[in-house]
Amino acid sequence: MTSSGASDVVEDAIESRRRLVNEAIPEELPVREPDRLWEASRYLLDAGGKRLRPTVLLLVAESLADVEPGATQYRSFPSLNGSRVDIMAAAVSVEIIQTFTLIHDDIMDADSYRRGVKTVHEAYDLETAILAGDTLYAKSFEIMLESGAPSVRANRAIGLLARTCTSICEGQALDVGFEGDPDVATEAYLDMIEQKTAVLYATSSSLPGILLGADNETIDALYSFGLDFGRAFQIKDDLLDLTADTATLGKDQGSDLLEGKRTVVTIHAQDQGLDVDELVADPDVSLEEIVVALDDVGSLDFANSLAAEYVTSAKEQLEILEANEARMLLADLTDYVIEREY
Amino acid sequence: MTSSGASDVVEDAIESRRRLVNEAIPEELPVREPDRLWEASRYLLDAGGKRLRPTVLLLVAESLADVEPGATQYRSFPSLNGSRVDIMAAAVSVEIIQTFTLIHDDIMDADSYRRGVKTVHEAYDLETAILAGDTLYAKSFEIMLESGAPSVRANRAIGLLARTCTSICEGQALDVGFEGDPDVATEAYLDMIEQKTAVLYATSSSLPGILLGADNETIDALYSFGLDFGRAFQIKDDLLDLTADTATLGKDQGSDLLEGKRTVVTIHAQDQGLDVDELVADPDVSLEEIVVALDDVGSLDFANSLAAEYVTSAKEQLEILEANEARMLLADLTDYVIEREY
Repeated sequence: MTSSGASDVVEDAIESRRRLVNEAIPEELPVREPDRLWEASRYLLDAGGKRLRPTVLLLVAESLADVEPGATQYRSFPSLNGSRVDIMAAAVSVEIIQTFTLIHDDIMDADSYRRGVKTVHEAYDLETAILAGDTLYAKSFEIMLESGAPSVRANRAIGLLARTCTSICEGQALDVGFEGDPDVATEAYLDMIEQKTAVLYATSSSLPGILLGADNETIDALYSFGLDFGRAFQIKDDLLDLTADTATLGKDQGSDLLEGKRTVVTIHAQDQGLDVDELVADPDVSLEEIVVALDDVGSLDFANSLAAEYVTSAKEQLEILEANEARMLLADLTDYVIEREY
Repeated sequence: MTSSGASDVVEDAIESRRRLVNEAIPEELPVREPDRLWEASRYLLDAGGKRLRPTVLLLVAESLADVEPGATQYRSFPSLNGSRVDIMAAAVSVEIIQTFTLIHDDIMDADSYRRGVKTVHEAYDLETAILAGDTLYAKSFEIMLESGAPSVRANRAIGLLARTCTSICEGQALDVGFEGDPDVATEAYLDMIEQKTAVLYATSSSLPGILLGADNETIDALYSFGLDFGRAFQIKDDLLDLTADTATLGKDQGSDLLEGKRTVVTIHAQDQGLDVDELVADPDVSLEEIVVALDDVGSLDFANSLAAEYVTSAKEQLEILEANEARMLLADLTDYVIEREY
């Protein structure tokens, strides 16, 4: 458990990196002709976001380089053999991949709000939203190539990014396929979130290893760290969908539940004999009553425990890094993932 | 003008490469879990297509390597310094990019047929079509990295592919923006087709130069060749939309015209004082009558002449290559672009 002092420190670490990522985004994605396309591509990025994936990436880079967190220019960052790498380019690249997937997912889920603003297909139109996603997709590869890392490493980074995008698509396809299916097992759900969510965290945490020239053992451990971090993140997200209010979430409370999405919470409840789909379909049962029912059969506790296990496992992987300040921040950030309230 | 003998030769050259590309596609994109996603990703690729972009790419490679066309294994192709490159991987990669853009464009244009079959969003659903396009997008980068070219060249190839995808999105955004706008100038239209269509041909023709290790002057000339080839191709496509019948096209005759798309034909006609939008909107005027009206004001001739100019310019760029059999086939293929009937 993080003390509230550590929690302040980690929120400062997120906030300071978030600010720098927010400055880098318009540098990497200036609005140009055709304006409407580029504005739509920037729209959701500019609407906010915690920038957790870039923060993980930047902190891992700082731990690997063994530098004081926040004291080194990310645009000219020391690799392990002395050459310089634009690690911020890699950080922006993964944030852009994440944003592209959100834009296309919102179309598929017919969602109207995200980050407290209209989704891109609602604010613009379907055509522009598809194209904005496609544009960000291409730009993320372009920007990743701008890191200035030696070409063997840059190639490996691009290969990882491409495989990750394939995996995210497979995860999203599974997620869509699960909707309304009462027979999804916990294991299948965990496979799905690994592909849909966790691989991009794993990419974020292992990319600095690749770009800065760490050894393969370190890169593999960092990848495992990101997978566990991402699994915990997604389970917490599923819990927040049920328990956080609409204003805090920036989207409708319970929207995943009402769309029939399977989560570790609803699968556990189903296994306990609670017919979640029936409750959701019943107009006389409120969202609050469903959440109480899920809590009564122990499903919220189950999900919280599972997320906590992944956090523990993630932090163990961090031991591959030097015991420096950046590594401590990464451990605190991992705790924060399940302690956050939005 | 190509003699009919030369035309047979070029059709054989297309057909033999098309067959090999068709064999390579399932090798690069096997159907795996989740099946529905991968089947949808393969669906339009398996429905046919002339494979013109891969054919250009393979023929340029054969001319650069100065080998007898069709006699060398594309999977283990000699680069200019003796090492081997899987040039077929690059050929499949560009075909996949093209297919991804068709799947997403068909959603944007709400088209129902393509290559004589239902479009992906009609045969499957919107969600699956968006995801199938996104999956192909990622795979094209993965496959390009499998060429086995030295990492500096592979990097340059990936950078070109990513910039090309950005450009295609910009071109498609311009195309969508032009719909129903009577004030689009010929120059703006030519900029649009350069981005939407010609850059992918330019990428196809210059990639072998990059991957096999040609000098920059050659790579630049090959890029210019592809741009002109692609411009001629798109203008001919616009003409075929008006003059070829539905069965030959595999999609509705005149669909671009009826959707209000601007082309070099309609812009020319508008400049001659013909109100094309009014004709299209008039239920008493048939498609055939509109085409006659376009012909009467010289717009079909104008478009044909412009395409022929690009063909001439493209063939001039080929002089950077050795005067070998593959180069002759490329010149014939360039003529074929405007002589084809579908």
